Amino acid sequence: MLDTLIHNATVVTVDPDFTILGNGAVGVRHGAIEMVAPLAAGQPLPDARETIDARGDIVMPGLVNAHTHLPMALFRGLADDLPLMAWLNDHIFPAEAQHIAPLSVALGARLACAEMLLGGITTCCDGYFLTAHFAAAVADSGLRAVLGQGVIDFPAPGVADPTQNVAVARDVVEKLGGRYPLVQPSIFCHSPYTCSAATLTAAKQAADASGVLFQIHVAETRAEREQMEKTHGCSPIAHLDRLGLLDANTLLVHAVWVDAADIGRIARSGARIAHCPESNMKLASGVAPLPDFLAAGIPVGLGTDGCASNNDLDLWGEMDMAAKLHKVQRLDPTAIKAAQVVRMATRDGAQAVGLGSLIGSLEPGKRADLIVVDTQQPHWTPLYHPASHLVYVARANDVRHVMIDGRWVVRDRSLRTMDVPAVLRDVNAWKAQR
Amino acid sequence: MLDTLIHNATVVTVDPDFTILGNGAVGVRHGAIEMVAPLAAGQPLPDARETIDARGDIVMPGLVNAHTHLPMALFRGLADDLPLMAWLNDHIFPAEAQHIAPLSVALGARLACAEMLLGGITTCCDGYFLTAHFAAAVADSGLRAVLGQGVIDFPAPGVADPTQNVAVARDVVEKLGGRYPLVQPSIFCHSPYTCSAATLTAAKQAADASGVLFQIHVAETRAEREQMEKTHGCSPIAHLDRLGLLDANTLLVHAVWVDAADIGRIARSGARIAHCPESNMKLASGVAPLPDFLAAGIPVGLGTDGCASNNDLDLWGEMDMAAKLHKVQRLDPTAIKAAQVVRMATRDGAQAVGLGSLIGSLEPGKRADLIVVDTQQPHWTPLYHPASHLVYVARANDVRHVMIDGRWVVRDRSLRTMDVPAVLRDVNAWKAQR
Repeated sequence: MLDTLIHNATVVTVDPDFTILGNGAVGVRHGAIEMVAPLAAGQPLPDARETIDARGDIVMPGLVNAHTHLPMALFRGLADDLPLMAWLNDHIFPAEAQHIAPLSVALGARLACAEMLLGGITTCCDGYFLTAHFAAAVADSGLRAVLGQGVIDFPAPGVADPTQNVAVARDVVEKLGGRYPLVQPSIFCHSPYTCSAATLTAAKQAADASGVLFQIHVAETRAEREQMEKTHGCSPIAHLDRLGLLDANTLLVHAVWVDAADIGRIARSGARIAHCPESNMKLASGVAPLPDFLAAGIPVGLGTDGCASNNDLDLWGEMDMAAKLHKVQRLDPTAIKAAQVVRMATRDGAQAVGLGSLIGSLEPGKRADLIVVDTQQPHWTPLYHPASHLVYVARANDVRHVMIDGRWVVRDRSLRTMDVPAVLRDVNAWKAQR
Repeated sequence: MLDTLIHNATVVTVDPDFTILGNGAVGVRHGAIEMVAPLAAGQPLPDARETIDARGDIVMPGLVNAHTHLPMALFRGLADDLPLMAWLNDHIFPAEAQHIAPLSVALGARLACAEMLLGGITTCCDGYFLTAHFAAAVADSGLRAVLGQGVIDFPAPGVADPTQNVAVARDVVEKLGGRYPLVQPSIFCHSPYTCSAATLTAAKQAADASGVLFQIHVAETRAEREQMEKTHGCSPIAHLDRLGLLDANTLLVHAVWVDAADIGRIARSGARIAHCPESNMKLASGVAPLPDFLAAGIPVGLGTDGCASNNDLDLWGEMDMAAKLHKVQRLDPTAIKAAQVVRMATRDGAQAVGLGSLIGSLEPGKRADLIVVDTQQPHWTPLYHPASHLVYVARANDVRHVMIDGRWVVRDRSLRTMDVPAVLRDVNAWKAQR
């Protein structure tokens, strides 16, 4: 007996062959995908405690947001359209110094999780500070998450003494390990220009010792690349490579200012990339060579980055942007194809954040993280090719239902795990008191 | 006595000073904006037949989609991610030859209007064939529109003999002139590489004689520019300039492959531009020098282009894309600012399509084309700067109500002028019979 059967749907499995079932059914049992199959007309339905007729809907894996800074949802749109250093030094850093605290990070995380879940994101990979103070909020929301405790060689929220940065991260990893079923701890080094070689090495060793993901912003801006070349005589990626930080357990975030040799280093090492096109565009950082990453076989996920630099957590917009940006940048409409982008937002993203064996596709044995997308709307009509519409027309509000680990978190566009109006009231009260 | 009063709203007027009223009211009478003012707490409300408390909402001018091909909504996502010539010759042109007919253009236009109205677009400027066959559908939808009858030196739907192309356009302009209160006819030349100098000149003369807008795709691709340089020894814009086609009644669509001399020609002439970033990106045409257009004082509107090359009619996505694309292309986060993009999508767009005196802002005396946007949602929270969120976070589904010429066309996200499920059924039936 299945727990849940969803039938009559177009099932975009994102299995290795990108199989799409025109009249498909997905069965869930004990939180896992039990069956994915076409059902012939008139064929009796498998027994299930709950049966959902999803006629006209697409069922697909939940989206994986491969890079976030959840608490920064509080700074959404605080300041925009400014030179990078003015934006950081005059707005974002002062706001963080003044307002980031144990209570506010939990509040920001609740806001971010509400937005992501309603928009079909079932997993995020985060890097921020005070991680232990918002892990419960994330877990309570029902989201699956990799939460990276930040490491930086400056005083940071919750880490007044930067010499303790790796020790604090190790403690957070230990504290969170196994504490919430769907939350995995991680260590997130801010960048090679804000962490010394010794810090980077110690942080990576700590991550490896605990078997958790090591994340790092790298090669985001031209200024960073130039500074690294001046200081270390090599590119940011080459610097990480020399320190032995590149392997299949490392997630490189941004990777914009990389050359062919860097791409070779990444591909050989097995490291993964979180591509954040909207953030890279809005901050005018540059365009990562995504088509080259894919050609080199590097697993690439898609990330929204934090709300302060995007300004939302909408992976549908990110998919559309990723598909279009690289076409125009190379003046080649075939540079990236819709199905590749769907893979990045699901299967490849799951692999990038270290959860590829658990989630990212609708295949028997994987955990049941899935979304049901409403296609009976003018902007979805007519529907020739599901992957095309998922990239070029779908919007966050098209997500009708969201299941994570077999549990319905969103039904009929309503979030079951959180009182959304109360979260908005709390955030507005926080803003008014600033 | 007002017909409608909307109060308690954040009013983004898009007046010349981009005035935003924190607790504002908008009054409508006889289809026009009668008042726009802040209301103090406790101040008695003006008398009105209908009073709407828009607490937590933004009221702003309806969006102007400066370039569409409405019937092509039927080909949304028909084929993607292909080289331009393969896409056109193997998919779009055959589909048009086989399926574009008087009934299908009306069906496609109904679908397109439904999508646009639900997404807050109150005006579109269109160019296609068989225009007289879908003008009634557009008028019935309640949309305000400039509808350009296509002119091209090849056989086209409804114009089997291309020597009659300008004559047919003149007839359509005559037939539609004054027929529907909110629909203005126009003449739309396909491009300088598909229309001879004689055709272009005759079409412009016909437009001028009737006092209607002259529209033309121009300088869209590098291939077009190269071909024009080879054939005419000058850029596409210079070619139009030599023919005397550039003036304040001409809308140049795309204008991607233009140089500084071309920008000078456009600015001096008073001609306007429809900027279509998503289409230019998806077809890998290139990046128009938008910041230079704005610096030169050229009125620029934003267009989605046809559904076949976007693949939606969502001006919110277009706004986000426009803001981000030019930042990254110039590696300058100040290249385009949010308020400029809001202007392009409203006030400047209205000016670009020749309706600047009628619509595009909430100012007394203008026609009442306005939208009410729901901000009480996670992705809108917190809200520091309305223009920022309108560009970087707003989505089509955030549009709660839409008024055009004083008439409610959308209320509570429901379209009053059309049976949307019936339109979707008709489109799906058309697709099944293809």
